[in-house]
Amino acid sequence: MNISIAPIGTIYSVFNDTETMARQSNIDGKEGRIELYAEYTAGLEGLRGFSHIIALYHFHKQAEVRLRARPCFGKNSARGIFASRYPTRPNHIGISVLSLERIDGNTLHCSNIDVLNGTPLLDIKPYVKHFDLLEDVRSGWYDDIDWDAVKSDCAHPEAK
Amino acid sequence: MNISIAPIGTIYSVFNDTETMARQSNIDGKEGRIELYAEYTAGLEGLRGFSHIIALYHFHKQAEVRLRARPCFGKNSARGIFASRYPTRPNHIGISVLSLERIDGNTLHCSNIDVLNGTPLLDIKPYVKHFDLLEDVRSGWYDDIDWDAVKSDCAHPEAK
Repeated sequence: MNISIAPIGTIYSVFNDTETMARQSNIDGKEGRIELYAEYTAGLEGLRGFSHIIALYHFHKQAEVRLRARPCFGKNSARGIFASRYPTRPNHIGISVLSLERIDGNTLHCSNIDVLNGTPLLDIKPYVKHFDLLEDVRSGWYDDIDWDAVKSDCAHPEAK
Repeated sequence: MNISIAPIGTIYSVFNDTETMARQSNIDGKEGRIELYAEYTAGLEGLRGFSHIIALYHFHKQAEVRLRARPCFGKNSARGIFASRYPTRPNHIGISVLSLERIDGNTLHCSNIDVLNGTPLLDIKPYVKHFDLLEDVRSGWYDDIDWDAVKSDCAHPEAK
């Protein structure tokens, strides 16, 4: 059964190729903006009160599906795709938690965008601390990473 | 531009209708399971070390798009769809943070499922505290809710 979806806007960033792209929004994401198609602007009502949003988008430059991938984090060891954020996943849907700085009409300015310039937007959800902020979290192999060192020792592109 | 996606599994829950369904995973979610299609099982490698996953799924019983909706939380006031988790959103993609109890083969047992029985699964991502656990979060209108009272005063279905 196939499901047909369609972009509802575009994410604009400073990243024009995967070689130099940010690896994660809160590690090396940069300022950018989401332009929601004008016909959806009414759906933004009430969003100004939120400090963060969850953007869903299409990894539009990634056609391949690989069930085991080598994210740069964690010394390039192979990981199951569902134990990583890497883009070679079935359906090629990405999510990023973005800091919402301000909204002008149908444009959302965000400070930590980590996707390619021109990425098709699929949805915006509010980050809700009562739902999304958890306690007692174990994060598998990510917990073994030296996050202070990660910014310097990684050269792999698309390292989600 | 349409994008074609396809389910990669099915989410099974105790909720067979929207009238009695849970409103949010960490409020009234119940035990259930995700059955990943067998051909994707290799993608689960390394997921056992995670306490939580982010499930992406299709609101398959919801065909309507409404840009302003009335989630039960917050006294049924109208909210922009992108300032809520309500299902009448463009593309009808939902996300839930689920507690991962154990994995048997291609079956993931979770303790707080909040979706309809038979919901098509689109993706599984690890919940990573280094990416998803934020500080200084403002959650807009959700911050005004009396969460202790919310379990008893809400009768609206699909109240995401």
